[in-house]
Amino acid sequence: MEPEKQVTGSRAWPHPEVVEDFFQLRQKAPLTHCITNIVVTNFTANVLLAAGASPAMVITMEEVADFVSIAEALLINVGTITTIDAEVMLKAAATAQETNTPWVLDPVAAGALKFRTDLIAQLIQFQPTVIRGNASEILAVSGFSGGGKGVDSTASSLAALPAARQLAVMTGAVVALSGEVDYITDGKEVIAIPGGHEIMTKVTGTGCSLGALIAAFLPVTVTPLRAAVAASVLFAAAGECAQKKAHGTGSFSMEFLDQLSTIGRG
Amino acid sequence: MEPEKQVTGSRAWPHPEVVEDFFQLRQKAPLTHCITNIVVTNFTANVLLAAGASPAMVITMEEVADFVSIAEALLINVGTITTIDAEVMLKAAATAQETNTPWVLDPVAAGALKFRTDLIAQLIQFQPTVIRGNASEILAVSGFSGGGKGVDSTASSLAALPAARQLAVMTGAVVALSGEVDYITDGKEVIAIPGGHEIMTKVTGTGCSLGALIAAFLPVTVTPLRAAVAASVLFAAAGECAQKKAHGTGSFSMEFLDQLSTIGRG
Amino acid sequence: MEPEKQVTGSRAWPHPEVVEDFFQLRQKAPLTHCITNIVVTNFTANVLLAAGASPAMVITMEEVADFVSIAEALLINVGTITTIDAEVMLKAAATAQETNTPWVLDPVAAGALKFRTDLIAQLIQFQPTVIRGNASEILAVSGFSGGGKGVDSTASSLAALPAARQLAVMTGAVVALSGEVDYITDGKEVIAIPGGHEIMTKVTGTGCSLGALIAAFLPVTVTPLRAAVAASVLFAAAGECAQKKAHGTGSFSMEFLDQLSTIGRG
Repeated sequence: MEPEKQVTGSRAWPHPEVVEDFFQLRQKAPLTHCITNIVVTNFTANVLLAAGASPAMVITMEEVADFVSIAEALLINVGTITTIDAEVMLKAAATAQETNTPWVLDPVAAGALKFRTDLIAQLIQFQPTVIRGNASEILAVSGFSGGGKGVDSTASSLAALPAARQLAVMTGAVVALSGEVDYITDGKEVIAIPGGHEIMTKVTGTGCSLGALIAAFLPVTVTPLRAAVAASVLFAAAGECAQKKAHGTGSFSMEFLDQLSTIGRG
Repeated sequence: MEPEKQVTGSRAWPHPEVVEDFFQLRQKAPLTHCITNIVVTNFTANVLLAAGASPAMVITMEEVADFVSIAEALLINVGTITTIDAEVMLKAAATAQETNTPWVLDPVAAGALKFRTDLIAQLIQFQPTVIRGNASEILAVSGFSGGGKGVDSTASSLAALPAARQLAVMTGAVVALSGEVDYITDGKEVIAIPGGHEIMTKVTGTGCSLGALIAAFLPVTVTPLRAAVAASVLFAAAGECAQKKAHGTGSFSMEFLDQLSTIGRG
Repeated sequence: MEPEKQVTGSRAWPHPEVVEDFFQLRQKAPLTHCITNIVVTNFTANVLLAAGASPAMVITMEEVADFVSIAEALLINVGTITTIDAEVMLKAAATAQETNTPWVLDPVAAGALKFRTDLIAQLIQFQPTVIRGNASEILAVSGFSGGGKGVDSTASSLAALPAARQLAVMTGAVVALSGEVDYITDGKEVIAIPGGHEIMTKVTGTGCSLGALIAAFLPVTVTPLRAAVAASVLFAAAGECAQKKAHGTGSFSMEFLDQLSTIGRG
């Protein structure tokens, strides 16, 4: 079956379900535990705060299990893993599974390097609620093909859609496949979210912070699919507006946070 | 006694003492050693540079004691501590005490997690010059009550004022209690600094970088109380102006640095 | 011989060689491996993306040698080294030498602290292609004199030019000396690049990200001298334009990225 034939729906802002889920996010400000890479920590925290969530980065072995238990959602992003981070991430994932804390895995650069590829395989054993990645990463994690160029995707999201669907079936996770069009799938349904702009690939952390925002939505939506859809629709809408006002990548970042922090507020 | 009755003074920009202290900061550009969390390192460095100080982040055991000796002030912020960071922070605090380097402790998320709560108690033994935190943190450190929600405060600053005063008396440190109104106290005097805006809680690092700016003021003011007051008044003034020009949290951050780097420059 | 007498050429935007090299950078988007300090990781990634390169931060011992082999260029910046980072950096530098991956060494705060000064000396044994630093750092590395104040230079770039030339002769590296005027030398030629602005010293990461951009240019230019010149000319041009539009240090950062991402795009 052709990838296009697999798409069963599409969403754009303001979709009523997304509006409702976003309202819940702002009402509940879910405490979102982020174990992410050192390039994007600041931007990720600012994205979550702008959207209305409550981010916290707790990254040491002595605290991580306790904090996963307190937190309402967890993000694990392997972008700049170290030896110690890998142990902390495994502990966090195991605790999330035990305590039923919903969590997102962002398998940055999966397939490109053995250490992280092995770690990602171990992390998946702890049943992430959502796996978010670009086409190269989803292809690598699903076993379809090996890696991209560094952290950037060399494949289109549509071409990776069959792999995303299979990964969802294999793992039980919702898979959020990022690209010019985002595709969200639980293995059965596939929701397309258009609106990504090339400029978003020229600002570091847009994909990584989308993973964090999906995590933040998990405790406030009725299904993980809706969480991934809501976060992706918000990102596309904020990106669309920001891109119109921006004069380059610096002002795009600023406008993107401005949009996220004001969208739907009146 | 009601908290409001305890307030003995208030300050807003342009207060003559603050103007004088700010002039000194810009003249002397004090070398300010920051051992802070990975979410806010960049913003903290940019805040100190904008205000006129000279920030430096030196974080490894082999260098930390030497650099505390060279530096004119030190900030220790436990936001994203690791096992190794904890040892480095204890070494830095011990050296600061030995070398009479004034220093600020920012007990992020005190009370919420045992490891950091214990570390904070140990750090306080090395006599910080100033302790800066939000209401939940100051309540936890003073022993009044346990923790907030993650890193964000769940109590108002006014409600925590008696705890702040008691903490100042117990430790000999000036306590800078951040909130919608900031309160600075040495246990006797209490200075209120109005002007905080809700948007500042939606940008990561505003509190953390205030701690760093207090540290930067310590070597140039006649008392630690004045250092904490000067930094807080500047922050409130810059925040006030930035908030008027901002269209969301992204432009707020930018305007805030613009204001800090130009305020009082004519 | 007076330093001024040593300058054999100067470059400003739009110089035909720089325009050509910049075109190549954008065409080839070289994968640039950055092992840099935690203050500037985000800004560095955004600078490289804005210019057109493909940055990746891989920092753990298990992955570093493999990734240096994959990457087209490497940056090592010792700004916030830890015990483990030092080992990783030595491994990365050794691998770069073995695999002929061109690399830039940024010896932040050389001379100020023994641990990093020793590490820098070891790293230089692996023959960096370019060494980039401010006057204090270049003076310290070349053995002329000891250190600056923290991470900021206390000497002018012109005064350090003889040291830069000697360092180039001693090590075989091109030396990129940053200051109000940048000087690039291979020991014989000296290219002056005017246009630095004081405001660039008030935004953290401008020097560090210049080092990263030099690394990105190395695989696409015919000589390392041209790579260092191209990056420095672009920085000066983007800084010049940004400074005219900026209202302080916050908007300067934003405008700087805007300029880098749009300059020469028509």
